[in-house]
Amino acid sequence: MSVVEPQATRTPGAARTAQAFEDWMRAELQVVEARLEAWVPAETPAGLGEAMRYGVLDGGKRLRPLLVLAASEATHGVREAALRAAVSVELIHAYSLIHDDMPCMDNDVLRRGKPTVHVRYGQAQAMLAGDAMQALAFEVLTPQAGEGAVEPALQARLCGLLARSAGHAGMAGGQAIDLASIGKPLDERALRDMHRRKTGALLQASVLMGAACGNCDARAWAALADFGGALGLAFQVVDDILDVTQESHTLGKTAGKDLNDNKPTYVSVLGLEAARRQAADLRDKAQEALRASGLAGTATLAQLADMVVERES
Amino acid sequence: MSVVEPQATRTPGAARTAQAFEDWMRAELQVVEARLEAWVPAETPAGLGEAMRYGVLDGGKRLRPLLVLAASEATHGVREAALRAAVSVELIHAYSLIHDDMPCMDNDVLRRGKPTVHVRYGQAQAMLAGDAMQALAFEVLTPQAGEGAVEPALQARLCGLLARSAGHAGMAGGQAIDLASIGKPLDERALRDMHRRKTGALLQASVLMGAACGNCDARAWAALADFGGALGLAFQVVDDILDVTQESHTLGKTAGKDLNDNKPTYVSVLGLEAARRQAADLRDKAQEALRASGLAGTATLAQLADMVVERES
Repeated sequence: MSVVEPQATRTPGAARTAQAFEDWMRAELQVVEARLEAWVPAETPAGLGEAMRYGVLDGGKRLRPLLVLAASEATHGVREAALRAAVSVELIHAYSLIHDDMPCMDNDVLRRGKPTVHVRYGQAQAMLAGDAMQALAFEVLTPQAGEGAVEPALQARLCGLLARSAGHAGMAGGQAIDLASIGKPLDERALRDMHRRKTGALLQASVLMGAACGNCDARAWAALADFGGALGLAFQVVDDILDVTQESHTLGKTAGKDLNDNKPTYVSVLGLEAARRQAADLRDKAQEALRASGLAGTATLAQLADMVVERES
Repeated sequence: MSVVEPQATRTPGAARTAQAFEDWMRAELQVVEARLEAWVPAETPAGLGEAMRYGVLDGGKRLRPLLVLAASEATHGVREAALRAAVSVELIHAYSLIHDDMPCMDNDVLRRGKPTVHVRYGQAQAMLAGDAMQALAFEVLTPQAGEGAVEPALQARLCGLLARSAGHAGMAGGQAIDLASIGKPLDERALRDMHRRKTGALLQASVLMGAACGNCDARAWAALADFGGALGLAFQVVDDILDVTQESHTLGKTAGKDLNDNKPTYVSVLGLEAARRQAADLRDKAQEALRASGLAGTATLAQLADMVVERES
């Protein structure tokens, strides 16, 4: 059962739209996979590339790349830039999972239905693979002569957005709060702050990097930032719900992990029903932000927001 | 005793030049320290910034920033861009030391005369601090509105140079080779390839990033790349020599570590005397490259190359 009632059962004519969205998603996922396949190096000394590829290919929902591409579509963005941005955010996401799974962090052995990178290749190689993937994200954003051209000012802007979402004020900062809050009671505000950084910052950056590839006035930019913020938080609320309501084989990762690790979650702080309502409210907030953007082509972004709250894994 | 006979004993008039170099270095180090102090965040949630600051402030020779600034000087570079590049390379260097010292890698407890970051703050925080420092390097290279202005095309170029030197084909790749070669006999060629990546890539990038801040034609660029390559290798040869000839308290890190870890070094592969000759040859090669650059103001770069081979710690 999904966390929130599917859009398709609520809106007349939504089934046809849903099919178009499925088609869009399938086509874009193929492109993203092909770019990842091409850009994450197969030939490196000492098997580093093999560990990198293991950590990022053949798995994952690719939500962040899809957000980049949908936001770029909504702003008539430059395709090559958007594809590079899409791959870069997925590389940052994948590196964070590799490091997060390590014994000194969450000590998880299962990810996307496979043994985690450190289980397969050892801790040292896993750490290096993550480090190299973070660097690779910025390599992808700065194509050299002979690679696909992206206007230098846009390269710089994308690098700046990505770095700030991944760093101390964003993802890495959120992970530090996560670490420090194990076994501690957090109120909803502190929990929200942690997740805004840990998960939300990169999801929001995905939307904004896509928008940066196109034409986006200040009003649309602010609205897309709101959209990305609400969607990022909704994603985490749903994650916390799925952690207690689904089995490991459905999730492709260890279920009940947060509870066992004594980590505060939306479910432990709010209770299951209030968490479900929170997810639905955040979806509504995200949709409202899209309407406020004044952009014409935001249907795909709206469907991605639905997907985030309606997913079952 | 220094590894290679000091320049000052060989060249008439060199003592006066040496004083000017000392003055330049003292002044520039102050500027670099002040920028690091300002840009590595003190206020972050969950103590992440504290671990980052511990890992990069109050220590280190700052060779990489000095190379950036000297190369920028030689090419009449934009000062703000060069300072940002200088800080960014030091952040990458410092993050690599934090990760390298961790138990799953070199398991070292002493660095710059202090307990290593994971000893002081725990492994998880050390890994996150390193991750956040890599991101911060790219934040520093992409100043936002209200921060010091750097032309966007230059921002993009600096990000590209830094990412490629830090990633799978550069530093991280070299570390993977290092890991894989413990206890294995390497010939000189394989050892050189490892060090060109592990240490050399970032040192060379420091020179080139400095040059990118200024005016540098293709001939000068190629010559500076040669200079950076030779200097990078010389640095490592000297490091290997010092590892067996100096005490821990002089080095500020554990002496004899490579030998104990059964790692191939220039000393173990070539022997001590041949390693000293190699260092001197590489210094000469570096100086020759500077002459070939056609640039007028390379005296400081030349003195940095001397310093690299003549250092005692």
